[in-house]
Amino acid sequence: MGIVVVGTVAFDTIETPFGRGENVLGGSATYFSTSASFFSDVSLVAVVGEDFPDEHVQFLQSRDIDVKGLSRIPGKTFHWTGKYGYDLNEAQTLDTQLNVLMEFRPNLPESYRDAEYLFLANIDPELQMEVLEQVRKPRLVACDTMNFWISSKPEALKRVLQKVDIVVINEAEARQFTGEVNLIKAARGIIALGCRRLVIKRGEYGVLMFTADSVFAAPAYPLEEVFDPTGAGDTFAGGFMGYLANTGDLSEDGIRQAIVFGSVMASFNVEDFSLNRMKRLEYKEIEARYKSFKSLTNFRDIAMP
Amino acid sequence: MGIVVVGTVAFDTIETPFGRGENVLGGSATYFSTSASFFSDVSLVAVVGEDFPDEHVQFLQSRDIDVKGLSRIPGKTFHWTGKYGYDLNEAQTLDTQLNVLMEFRPNLPESYRDAEYLFLANIDPELQMEVLEQVRKPRLVACDTMNFWISSKPEALKRVLQKVDIVVINEAEARQFTGEVNLIKAARGIIALGCRRLVIKRGEYGVLMFTADSVFAAPAYPLEEVFDPTGAGDTFAGGFMGYLANTGDLSEDGIRQAIVFGSVMASFNVEDFSLNRMKRLEYKEIEARYKSFKSLTNFRDIAMP
Repeated sequence: MGIVVVGTVAFDTIETPFGRGENVLGGSATYFSTSASFFSDVSLVAVVGEDFPDEHVQFLQSRDIDVKGLSRIPGKTFHWTGKYGYDLNEAQTLDTQLNVLMEFRPNLPESYRDAEYLFLANIDPELQMEVLEQVRKPRLVACDTMNFWISSKPEALKRVLQKVDIVVINEAEARQFTGEVNLIKAARGIIALGCRRLVIKRGEYGVLMFTADSVFAAPAYPLEEVFDPTGAGDTFAGGFMGYLANTGDLSEDGIRQAIVFGSVMASFNVEDFSLNRMKRLEYKEIEARYKSFKSLTNFRDIAMP
Repeated sequence: MGIVVVGTVAFDTIETPFGRGENVLGGSATYFSTSASFFSDVSLVAVVGEDFPDEHVQFLQSRDIDVKGLSRIPGKTFHWTGKYGYDLNEAQTLDTQLNVLMEFRPNLPESYRDAEYLFLANIDPELQMEVLEQVRKPRLVACDTMNFWISSKPEALKRVLQKVDIVVINEAEARQFTGEVNLIKAARGIIALGCRRLVIKRGEYGVLMFTADSVFAAPAYPLEEVFDPTGAGDTFAGGFMGYLANTGDLSEDGIRQAIVFGSVMASFNVEDFSLNRMKRLEYKEIEARYKSFKSLTNFRDIAMP
């Protein structure tokens, strides 16, 4: 089987300089699985409340996402309220209502436990560890986290980092985790903690990927219109893991190409609120943007001084 | 003949979190010509005062830089004092003593007027225009500018932009010039003013290059130690123009490769104060870093979903 993602399915209320979305569909597992579904089978583990409308579940199913692991329990769905200024790189959290998320204890359906690819989206690192223990022989595991866990549960987080193959975090989190201002030093510090491969997201500045002995830099796809960066990181991770699950190529070259597909998916997601762009995205658009991404970064040795 | 650069030769007093440089050698023409001298003949036009020590002139000559256009006049040399915080991307100007720069009226030696390549470093756009009128048939002209001229002489600056082949400015200047927050829109706006090719410098985030119908993104070379960003932009421009003058290849591919050589030169310059790193730089280091720059950005189509 393909990818299993454990994370959140949520309502978001988002304000950007370009508009406002009230109680729109959000959540890390939602963005990740929708993005990954363009490349691979994907199964989702998350919790929602009684207020979560069927239409959203039907949308996930329309993307052939396995929702067996989506449990609906008494109470209200996790609700995040955030705001972006003109610097769309950073969200300001206005309100977080955990609601049913407080009772979230991921319990993978039997059919999920043979997952080849596992993505631990940003949840409590202790829950991430519980999930790791439930999956038998995954071929590749990646995880995300956030500033809250870095400051509140650094030791649990370090144990997770040592167990996964790829850590995907943003620039500020890498600096916070290591107390290093210089991003390259910060990356080396995280690698030194026992993380084999580190992907650092830099918003409109793209992505840096580190191993102990290599660095790869991919720019963000240049966009004239960015409406809503919410979910860009999880959409990136979904495209990245989806591509890897699709090709099965875990060579450095294969992983670099996956980074580019992840970047392409993120570039679509930010073009509209919530998952609206994803809902109307067609695979041929992905292919076309991948091609222009190549021409964006391509240079050749044509003459050496 | 090769490249002519018109700009400043200055004393800098610089403070960074990593140290302090007092009355050190600086100036846009100094950084540019030193960087370009690794690839091409370069001649310099600038003014200094009576206080400018011969050892600095001898250094420029040791790089085979033609200093016929360096005039020494009564008064003191231009002195810039600046400070960087941990965010090394932006300098805070503490003091600017124009001194002899106030009387600077660039007058090109006869032998300079057949220059094939011309770089108009950041000076008054009206002076940039005077220089343009003195050069007979340059093959390629590029220019830089700064926030001060964008706000004080926008019209003169626009006239210069329309006469040059390549404009090289930083991210904040591109946004300021157009009043556009979105960098891609800002770039389109500057292209629309009649600038054929625009290179936008983004510090540690690298470079974006625009034409009416193409975009090229190059990352900055990842460095664990950045001591002093002063002169990085002019060092970039020097490597960029120097490479172009060396190969004579003004195709899109040739210009993209020149961007990478410019980025490589800038990455060395920031490793030490003033021009100290440039003074001990050897060509084989440039070749080696170019190669690792390639592996930093290279990805291949190995499998398409």
